[in-house]
Amino acid sequence: MLLPNIKHPNQLKNLSVDELEDLAVQIRQFLIEKLSVTGGHLAPNLGVVELTLALHYCFDSPRDKMIFDVGHQAYVHKILTGRMDKFDTLRKYKGLCGFVKRAESEHDVWEAGHSSTSLSAAMGMAMARDLKGDDNRVIALIGDGALTGGMAFEALNHIGHERKKLMVILNDNEMSIAPNVGAMHNYLSKIRSDRYYLRAKDEVEMLLKKIPAIGGKLAKTAEKMKDSLKYMMVPGVLFEELGFTYLGPVDGHDLGKLIDTLQQADNVDGPVLIHAVTTKGKGYRPAESDSHKWHGITPYKIESGQVLKAVGNPMYTEVFGQTLVELGEQDERIVAVTPAMPGGSGLIPFGKKFPDRMIDVGIAEQHAATLCAALAMEGLKPVFAVYSTFMQRAYDQIVHDICRHNANVMFAIDRAGFVGADGETHQGVYDVAFMRHIPNIVIMMPKDENELRHMMKTALDYNDGPIAYRYPRNNVRGVPLDPELVPIPIGTWETVRRGEGYAILAAGPMVQLAEEAADQLKREGISVEVVNARFLKPLDGDMLKKLAASGTSMVVLEETSQAGSLGSSVLEYFAEQGIHDAVVSLMGIEDRFIEHGSIQEQREEVGLTLEAVCSEIRSLKSARTAALGKRSFTS
Amino acid sequence: MLLPNIKHPNQLKNLSVDELEDLAVQIRQFLIEKLSVTGGHLAPNLGVVELTLALHYCFDSPRDKMIFDVGHQAYVHKILTGRMDKFDTLRKYKGLCGFVKRAESEHDVWEAGHSSTSLSAAMGMAMARDLKGDDNRVIALIGDGALTGGMAFEALNHIGHERKKLMVILNDNEMSIAPNVGAMHNYLSKIRSDRYYLRAKDEVEMLLKKIPAIGGKLAKTAEKMKDSLKYMMVPGVLFEELGFTYLGPVDGHDLGKLIDTLQQADNVDGPVLIHAVTTKGKGYRPAESDSHKWHGITPYKIESGQVLKAVGNPMYTEVFGQTLVELGEQDERIVAVTPAMPGGSGLIPFGKKFPDRMIDVGIAEQHAATLCAALAMEGLKPVFAVYSTFMQRAYDQIVHDICRHNANVMFAIDRAGFVGADGETHQGVYDVAFMRHIPNIVIMMPKDENELRHMMKTALDYNDGPIAYRYPRNNVRGVPLDPELVPIPIGTWETVRRGEGYAILAAGPMVQLAEEAADQLKREGISVEVVNARFLKPLDGDMLKKLAASGTSMVVLEETSQAGSLGSSVLEYFAEQGIHDAVVSLMGIEDRFIEHGSIQEQREEVGLTLEAVCSEIRSLKSARTAALGKRSFTS
Repeated sequence: MLLPNIKHPNQLKNLSVDELEDLAVQIRQFLIEKLSVTGGHLAPNLGVVELTLALHYCFDSPRDKMIFDVGHQAYVHKILTGRMDKFDTLRKYKGLCGFVKRAESEHDVWEAGHSSTSLSAAMGMAMARDLKGDDNRVIALIGDGALTGGMAFEALNHIGHERKKLMVILNDNEMSIAPNVGAMHNYLSKIRSDRYYLRAKDEVEMLLKKIPAIGGKLAKTAEKMKDSLKYMMVPGVLFEELGFTYLGPVDGHDLGKLIDTLQQADNVDGPVLIHAVTTKGKGYRPAESDSHKWHGITPYKIESGQVLKAVGNPMYTEVFGQTLVELGEQDERIVAVTPAMPGGSGLIPFGKKFPDRMIDVGIAEQHAATLCAALAMEGLKPVFAVYSTFMQRAYDQIVHDICRHNANVMFAIDRAGFVGADGETHQGVYDVAFMRHIPNIVIMMPKDENELRHMMKTALDYNDGPIAYRYPRNNVRGVPLDPELVPIPIGTWETVRRGEGYAILAAGPMVQLAEEAADQLKREGISVEVVNARFLKPLDGDMLKKLAASGTSMVVLEETSQAGSLGSSVLEYFAEQGIHDAVVSLMGIEDRFIEHGSIQEQREEVGLTLEAVCSEIRSLKSARTAALGKRSFTS
Repeated sequence: MLLPNIKHPNQLKNLSVDELEDLAVQIRQFLIEKLSVTGGHLAPNLGVVELTLALHYCFDSPRDKMIFDVGHQAYVHKILTGRMDKFDTLRKYKGLCGFVKRAESEHDVWEAGHSSTSLSAAMGMAMARDLKGDDNRVIALIGDGALTGGMAFEALNHIGHERKKLMVILNDNEMSIAPNVGAMHNYLSKIRSDRYYLRAKDEVEMLLKKIPAIGGKLAKTAEKMKDSLKYMMVPGVLFEELGFTYLGPVDGHDLGKLIDTLQQADNVDGPVLIHAVTTKGKGYRPAESDSHKWHGITPYKIESGQVLKAVGNPMYTEVFGQTLVELGEQDERIVAVTPAMPGGSGLIPFGKKFPDRMIDVGIAEQHAATLCAALAMEGLKPVFAVYSTFMQRAYDQIVHDICRHNANVMFAIDRAGFVGADGETHQGVYDVAFMRHIPNIVIMMPKDENELRHMMKTALDYNDGPIAYRYPRNNVRGVPLDPELVPIPIGTWETVRRGEGYAILAAGPMVQLAEEAADQLKREGISVEVVNARFLKPLDGDMLKKLAASGTSMVVLEETSQAGSLGSSVLEYFAEQGIHDAVVSLMGIEDRFIEHGSIQEQREEVGLTLEAVCSEIRSLKSARTAALGKRSFTS
């Protein structure tokens, strides 16, 4: 076994191509075994084994900067850079990160979790290199899916213009997380599938010679035509027109050819795009045959490929997806818009039932949001189904195109709150803070799946502008589902547990935690009201005024950034009402990025636990007792 | 005069091309005269006179949807749709909007102020049309500059894939607001300048016939080659590869040709891109010869083209630009990054002095932000110079690439606060709310130009992560400038006026207003402290605690959205500290979009005035007196 001896990528340089091929087999074996226990991004990593080997064989990390777009396909890179022994802890709390992570290794130079950032990163590193007078290489590895993100094009446009020396490796696996869509995809398919493109240049040259010499008026055209022909005979004209030297397509699993191509690319002055064609899931039959399913996978049985399903209730995502089908049957104005996440967002059933009303725009959150605005302005009822973290990409479009137009767009914000193993790049903890200051929008969060369904109906019936419902990456509570969906009056909260003196205002899964705390405190003789603050905007002013008037001390409990979210909004409300004596305590997520682990571990890390909530109420009680004592002492 | 009789665009349909040409002359005359008094976007509108006439001649607004990207080039459209008599009020408070405005006319179907949204809007309208079974046309007019914005590419990619019937008119004026950059620009230039591209197809066909028939091995290649050739002989292969039918380039000032091309385009099934070449400022010599200067212009003398400069102090932008040159001389790590706003951001002097360290990425805020992250991670000190409103586009990149990496990026946020005549799409009133919840960032705002300079030094010396300074679209106060720049301790506020019992916490230009209010109230016998809350994050906790401990009633005065900004942050601070009896009153911008007018009129509209501030303090005083009375009554 070669693999266990590889501690540094420079050890690869002494190996033969045959040995590298052996290594590829061993790496695949290792990944398949390890991930069968931990889960993780199996298919993407099986697809880049040879690419990663070739990169480290040809170039010198960390001097040469290797940038992995999205960063979930860097497992092979991690193995080759001394982290093989950490794979048992993959994506676990305090364990090996599932993405590139600078704190882990000097070979990790750029972190990402959102797609399409690698080209901008590469350009920045190339420009810095030139300004500093260094001569290291800069290489970005980007998938065909990520290439459709607008910022990747912005970077291509800049790179092609400045003609900086850098290398872009397009890992074309014919699909990203979802079936790829978009004209760029069609274009790449054409290159791949058209054997004509693969013809040797010699043949073209021969043919050109057969065109007779022409004089007179047509001479110049003819000459130009010959140039054009040579040009057309090689694929990638689109990239060439944008200023890149295009090399490829090359078989991304043929180590010899990959190494040749990388070396050839290294000799080009200016930006090069290497088009490598790979198979996602390569070398593991179940993953090859269903690479979507195996993109990110839970533990599985190696032999059968059988996935070990977690037991438990369905996810909120599924309830959303099913309910959308129900509503879609009743209202044909509903269209679903997803930025490349039809599966992850639970939209497969809707898409099967209503293929014309299912719009997958590819990795393109900005376009998705503005498209929704236009669909709404033409009388349809678009649902922008998006993960909280990816919605960050569409902030400006939400402000400028949706909310300013006051368009009737419905937002289905999935993965709101902690997301677990994907960690800090994927936490859905900012959407309340970055949306609630935008005029015209309504934001809801359900305490359980039954309420989610009513909220979806609420959103559908609402015709006064944009309205959002956000729900967690969690299993549902398992409550009974009402057969009839009834809209909830906008801006009304719900008292889910009566109490006196203290109240917890919570939304989403935090309502359950609040209820548990109320139960616990009741046993201690403290009466706590639990309010389901299901509208994060607008607030229920009447209820807030009543609570303040009765001298109730409040805890706002939220699984979002404490800065700028619900608690902040409650405080503003009281200040605006001139209520300056309300006691409001904030329990949200502190001002730092929270890393990977389970959702429960993440909650514990920031103190969103039963014990912490109880303790907060007890402190409020002590403070009140002390204040009362002081007052009777001084008066 | 034809022009004054045009009340509806359908009147154009009975005119001859000659008459339309007369109309074009009259429209130009009208624009040049009117804008000489009001100011406005002269050059862009002079460039699209014929295009707009041709659109309304060929198509039927409002049934056919005409979408203007950015929307500042819709003056001609406004003239032709019955708003000619409103041009005296252009960009004035309650007057004609400088952008497309749905409330003004049924012919205005899509509002914008930020660029690159029109293709997504067109796609949404085309999809809605098809779902509803309608058959109206959808036409987007987009400039070559706007085409480089990533979301425009996301839309192209989607449109080209779905092949919806719609028309994109690329208004290629070889420059947008700034000299155009990017590979796409180079590509368009090539098409424009290469006379070969303009050769008639016939000629190519003739030539093709001269290629002898070839048998055997090469036959298929030859055939394919002939196809390719035809294809290559027409320009726009890049757009064709993306699924569009490309027509052009066509002279955008030749009404006859434009009309022919639009009619030809209308017969195409699927998406068409019409490449129209125009001259920005066409028909007015001063504007033609310096179209950047004349992009958006203040009042001018028609004959001489002499611009009537407003008297007054220089703008903050200029102080920033000059100071950046000073700092750039001392520290060669500084690089300036602008998304197509070198002039507007005051970077011309820096760019002249340090051409290698001046990076204009085109309209590409996302790429700009991530590029800055990478530059910083390689040891440089990038300044991301950007308008507050356009920074919205980079929210995700600020979170995911800059702040999560804790990269030493400096943000120079211009046009923070109200922006005046550009109105609701351009207000810089959300950046505090959308940035302050992001971990790791420091945000400052100076009370005057001298402090801005010290803040720039503060940012340069700061090496613990991202740091921003935001400044208004205002003339500076005219204070003396310290020769030596000294960093300000992070998170410290400054008491600019001593007082007791009441305090106004303000930042930026609001500090001056607070001082004026303190003066006024002093005359009434009310002592008011004025605090320059120059760090919007982190807050000065010591000062806040001191104020609360002394029982001072506070007013937070800010020209930003009241939701989620400084006031909100102060309230959170007290709640976190368990200080529940602090009296804090909020004076920010209420929760709605504020339309165009002067900055002063906008402040008056939302109550950021001397009288309102004084009145707020007086109310706090009355409330306190009442409470004291009540307490002594009850005790």
